[in-house]
Amino acid sequence: MNKGKIKLGLIGGGPNSFIGPVHRIAAYMGERYDLVGGVFDIDYEQSKAFAEKLELDASRAYKDLDDFISGELSRPADERIEAVSILTPNFLHYPMAKRLVGEGFHVICEKPITMTAAEAVELAELVEQKGVVFSLTHTYTGYPMVRQMKAMIAAGALGKIHKMDAQYYQGWINPFIHEKDKRAGVWRLDPAKSGQSCCFGDIGVHAFNLLEYTTGLTINKVLADINTLYEDNPLDVDGTALVRTTDGVRGIVRASQIATGEENNIVVTVYGDKAGLRWEQENPTYLKFMEEGKPAQILKPGNPYLSEFSLESTKIAPGHPEGLFDAMGNIYSGTAQAIRKESYRDGAFPTVQDGVRGMNFIEAVLESSKNGQVWVSI
Amino acid sequence: MNKGKIKLGLIGGGPNSFIGPVHRIAAYMGERYDLVGGVFDIDYEQSKAFAEKLELDASRAYKDLDDFISGELSRPADERIEAVSILTPNFLHYPMAKRLVGEGFHVICEKPITMTAAEAVELAELVEQKGVVFSLTHTYTGYPMVRQMKAMIAAGALGKIHKMDAQYYQGWINPFIHEKDKRAGVWRLDPAKSGQSCCFGDIGVHAFNLLEYTTGLTINKVLADINTLYEDNPLDVDGTALVRTTDGVRGIVRASQIATGEENNIVVTVYGDKAGLRWEQENPTYLKFMEEGKPAQILKPGNPYLSEFSLESTKIAPGHPEGLFDAMGNIYSGTAQAIRKESYRDGAFPTVQDGVRGMNFIEAVLESSKNGQVWVSI
Amino acid sequence: MNKGKIKLGLIGGGPNSFIGPVHRIAAYMGERYDLVGGVFDIDYEQSKAFAEKLELDASRAYKDLDDFISGELSRPADERIEAVSILTPNFLHYPMAKRLVGEGFHVICEKPITMTAAEAVELAELVEQKGVVFSLTHTYTGYPMVRQMKAMIAAGALGKIHKMDAQYYQGWINPFIHEKDKRAGVWRLDPAKSGQSCCFGDIGVHAFNLLEYTTGLTINKVLADINTLYEDNPLDVDGTALVRTTDGVRGIVRASQIATGEENNIVVTVYGDKAGLRWEQENPTYLKFMEEGKPAQILKPGNPYLSEFSLESTKIAPGHPEGLFDAMGNIYSGTAQAIRKESYRDGAFPTVQDGVRGMNFIEAVLESSKNGQVWVSI
Amino acid sequence: MNKGKIKLGLIGGGPNSFIGPVHRIAAYMGERYDLVGGVFDIDYEQSKAFAEKLELDASRAYKDLDDFISGELSRPADERIEAVSILTPNFLHYPMAKRLVGEGFHVICEKPITMTAAEAVELAELVEQKGVVFSLTHTYTGYPMVRQMKAMIAAGALGKIHKMDAQYYQGWINPFIHEKDKRAGVWRLDPAKSGQSCCFGDIGVHAFNLLEYTTGLTINKVLADINTLYEDNPLDVDGTALVRTTDGVRGIVRASQIATGEENNIVVTVYGDKAGLRWEQENPTYLKFMEEGKPAQILKPGNPYLSEFSLESTKIAPGHPEGLFDAMGNIYSGTAQAIRKESYRDGAFPTVQDGVRGMNFIEAVLESSKNGQVWVSI
Repeated sequence: MNKGKIKLGLIGGGPNSFIGPVHRIAAYMGERYDLVGGVFDIDYEQSKAFAEKLELDASRAYKDLDDFISGELSRPADERIEAVSILTPNFLHYPMAKRLVGEGFHVICEKPITMTAAEAVELAELVEQKGVVFSLTHTYTGYPMVRQMKAMIAAGALGKIHKMDAQYYQGWINPFIHEKDKRAGVWRLDPAKSGQSCCFGDIGVHAFNLLEYTTGLTINKVLADINTLYEDNPLDVDGTALVRTTDGVRGIVRASQIATGEENNIVVTVYGDKAGLRWEQENPTYLKFMEEGKPAQILKPGNPYLSEFSLESTKIAPGHPEGLFDAMGNIYSGTAQAIRKESYRDGAFPTVQDGVRGMNFIEAVLESSKNGQVWVSI
Repeated sequence: MNKGKIKLGLIGGGPNSFIGPVHRIAAYMGERYDLVGGVFDIDYEQSKAFAEKLELDASRAYKDLDDFISGELSRPADERIEAVSILTPNFLHYPMAKRLVGEGFHVICEKPITMTAAEAVELAELVEQKGVVFSLTHTYTGYPMVRQMKAMIAAGALGKIHKMDAQYYQGWINPFIHEKDKRAGVWRLDPAKSGQSCCFGDIGVHAFNLLEYTTGLTINKVLADINTLYEDNPLDVDGTALVRTTDGVRGIVRASQIATGEENNIVVTVYGDKAGLRWEQENPTYLKFMEEGKPAQILKPGNPYLSEFSLESTKIAPGHPEGLFDAMGNIYSGTAQAIRKESYRDGAFPTVQDGVRGMNFIEAVLESSKNGQVWVSI
Repeated sequence: MNKGKIKLGLIGGGPNSFIGPVHRIAAYMGERYDLVGGVFDIDYEQSKAFAEKLELDASRAYKDLDDFISGELSRPADERIEAVSILTPNFLHYPMAKRLVGEGFHVICEKPITMTAAEAVELAELVEQKGVVFSLTHTYTGYPMVRQMKAMIAAGALGKIHKMDAQYYQGWINPFIHEKDKRAGVWRLDPAKSGQSCCFGDIGVHAFNLLEYTTGLTINKVLADINTLYEDNPLDVDGTALVRTTDGVRGIVRASQIATGEENNIVVTVYGDKAGLRWEQENPTYLKFMEEGKPAQILKPGNPYLSEFSLESTKIAPGHPEGLFDAMGNIYSGTAQAIRKESYRDGAFPTVQDGVRGMNFIEAVLESSKNGQVWVSI
Repeated sequence: MNKGKIKLGLIGGGPNSFIGPVHRIAAYMGERYDLVGGVFDIDYEQSKAFAEKLELDASRAYKDLDDFISGELSRPADERIEAVSILTPNFLHYPMAKRLVGEGFHVICEKPITMTAAEAVELAELVEQKGVVFSLTHTYTGYPMVRQMKAMIAAGALGKIHKMDAQYYQGWINPFIHEKDKRAGVWRLDPAKSGQSCCFGDIGVHAFNLLEYTTGLTINKVLADINTLYEDNPLDVDGTALVRTTDGVRGIVRASQIATGEENNIVVTVYGDKAGLRWEQENPTYLKFMEEGKPAQILKPGNPYLSEFSLESTKIAPGHPEGLFDAMGNIYSGTAQAIRKESYRDGAFPTVQDGVRGMNFIEAVLESSKNGQVWVSI
């Protein structure tokens, strides 16, 4: 069995990638991964140049996935890349993940996990069969105060939950959506590249995931009203989903990419019969705890009054903000624990099952909306 | 025609009333009303004692509404009470308003205007027929920054509106709702006293009103999911309504009385193709203006960069907060302008038509929810 | 002895007055005063017109203070104005207050109480001798959460205080100060009208007062560095004062009128060995309580967990903001309690002794600064 | 000349170090450094174990600084460690930096740079003589919005600056300071380990640095009042310094470690005749721009409306928070630019001259306070 740092490969994420640095930095943060090689770019020359820039062994910059797999499998087991981060365009996540899992690589995969729920289910089965670790980067679950929220709810701080509300509002598509020519040029609005859904597939699913992650509840019914804004636009850019959990708790998932002027305004609020909790992504170091009959409390990372899970997810003393890279770093560290078969906490990283649930949610949202806002089971 | 201060009467609002001081102070604020008399309490002795405490003419403390009407009508026109504020329990608003309007009094009425939409329509017709002023205290419309929001939207600051979201979250019912005995003792959960709806009737309708007030749009379709939380509880304590306007804009009205730890958390957000605007009731002196591609701006009352409507609704220099009493004061002042047949701005006070719209909304919410979350026209 | 509502007169505060409505509304709020007459404007015709507009008895609109005093004293005691609010330009506060106190009227006086500390001392002696109530409108002490801060500190919530810091930053003078012609036209920069100090006399003294009010400590040493910004400007527009209390606690009083873009940014923070407390005037309904080793708490008005003093200073349920008018209303109500010889809490209204302390502080600041920032005793 | 990644060594920062991960992650972030070796711990066995854990070449884990220097200098120039981060206890910064600079290593040094101003001056001369890069980790200057503040002020957004105010309030020493035994055990209160000053040496100097960094002004006079709180405590735990710049601008530097309940509450505010700017470390992604006569604007990282300097200091799209590690990463990246003789912006990293200025400030503060709060030149 391998020990020490995990040899990491990347598919995508090279020059000009927005998400590449997030993953690489996240991998460096916990000092548990060693970036060894990959297919950094679809253009082989660019890929090699990128490897050179990072001072990686030139022979580990591969032309394509086939090349990567055969190249790595031909090496001795203790030199071989063990885990691969998939940072390609959306429609490639599934085929590449399937291929890599099939060959026994651990996989860290960007969202969306697949293009359909059926694919996600199939992938989940393969992951189980192969016994590899599969980590899906629902990055926000890596924030210390999201983990604190999960830990507090699990410990009963809210009592019995009776209402939940998650918002993910962005405005980035507003400058492009109103003119036919401009919106035609947005890849996220192209089903072939983006999948069945734009807004819910990209961000609504984060809001859904945060509700399930923090509460531990299972959403099993959805009624949704999505909006493409223009008839010739094939994909949703906005919408609201009413949800219910298996034990009847009602919630709301609100998502938008036409919330003009918003950047990344995620707000997750959960209320129970003892208290409420609210977390906002743009001020991620504040968790508001509203106990019945008492002044609201503002919990902040790194303080002794927090749960162990939250404290383990902070690298610095109270009052020094951490951000998105640190959240992703926590997910990479949790994934490393699983790969090295160390004990790890529930929620240390999102799994392939979270991917299945997310895809089921997205498809339920689309079905509900297509049929005129009816309840659909997940 | 009467001139000078308006002679004001009160029905209800006497000793131990929570809302009485709000109305009296609001009336005093603009120095346009003279409180003359009324039926201050259902107990005649209490009513008289209250008049004495306020040093009113003892003969203007009446036993009941009949007494009030006959007493005032017997006086010379220039001594007679001209306007009456109705601050009684909910189920009495309609019969009293009908009676007073019928006799030619101007009326300032607490919410809900009536118990049914049909009653509201009937009342609106009577108001028109009698030519009196009818003011409904949707108090939040009196805030300077809500008026600024209305003025900016009317002036095109948001461009074409494409999304709106209003929240009214309270937690006050949480301590009472979970035990059968306790919830049975809450008057707001008794249909005979409270009407057809608790949460939407009391607060959801404010959120609805704020969307229509600020945007000038007309909501004509509703799909709602309300929650009584317990089967033996006859009235809603929580719910979400998807709404659409006559020109297809989608919105959300979210309301709760079980949002544990929340006090009066109203948030109104409207997005258009040029910008977004957000106002929060618990920080009422801040209006967030999010223009496409620019830094968000924080507008505050009393500044020269504001609309005239907003500036007229502030009594003090920038940086000195005003609050709920000041908002109600603005509504009283607007009502006074109408009573004295001065020119006044659209939105200076909520009218009987706002009452009709609110009751229609509430009934549509209930019908939608009863029928399993279907679209209902308003 | 008089009973019931207190007959109130105004000197100043008529048409075009900024502060007039604040006082009148504050007097109306508690329903303990009856506005009867006054010298509303220096122009007699304007004064009479103002009385007519407010529908006051025309004979109670006086030409000047002499007229007012002789007119009122000639009436039967039970019809006579009992309390007078002085809202004139600064340099008239002292002579008018002295005259009115000397004739036995209760006085509510705007800041600054006098032009010199010696005058304040003299006035204080006269107030004591005459046995009247003298209320100085340090308005911010009327806010419910400032009173909560005072109550908590008195109850030991902070333990032993070891540091305090008060800021009052405005930017209003910035547009006028940089050009000689413009600044020459600002009355607050004219010592004849404004007194010895502009910034510290007008606002620094509020910051000083809030430290003493909330902590109950006595500041007895000052070292100050004030700034006139231009040599030909006779009065300070900015400055910082280091202060020490009789028991050695150090503090800072920071004030500015050239803090460009600030409106009325008052922040009062006090730290003890158990906890810290912070209040900000522009968000007056939030009091931050930072207990050692615990999450910060956000206290809000009207909640059962507050002190009685704070709860008595709020007129409405939690979550409905009150503002400056309400704070002034509390001061008027406290003054009424004193006038009617009811029991009242320490801090219910600022007294003539607060005025003496404020003038001593201002003179110490000026002396310290003039002598090159040396320690000066108060 | 060397190319590619910079070979980095660490002195200190090994197991159990709080600051070690900050530096290592910062070095990884920009992918411009390769961590090669060092003296990770004073205990050689621990140091070697740490190198093994990080999978470094065992021969690069040195016993002590002498060993490190002779070991590295014995290697071929292109294999040699080029830059060294000094993360030892405070009193070792100077001797180690002097030694390393003397041998031609580039140095990245934790604060405080030295124990005395004289040492700092000497070190600065040596740095110049040796032509190496010396980077002092005033980490907060690495935040994108601090850099935006600097860029805006340089571009004239504030006009002529006329006031500045910097606060750095912590409460961490409160639990230890009040009992003699406890405070005796705090190393930061031991002059042998901590230097001449605790509060100003550790954090006041950051506030000072942020004023000079953002404004580009030079502070040349100080009047300070520091507080040890207890007579037997040799070092300051709190204090305030009045400052003036070479062109007469006045400012305030406020620092405390007994601000109970505060974590790392840095606030930097600068006002000019056109506008004001405020940045707060605990919400580092918001920069408040208060332009005369306009609504305040909230600038956020990554947006096109920002300066190039700020944009280059952000690694991700708007709305995704970055934090302290990212700020330190920016400083490491700026230092790398200098080491590789690339062009870099003024302010890309704090230099040895910033260290000299800081030490001068600290000594001036101490001298002023010792002499009873007199003005001292820097």
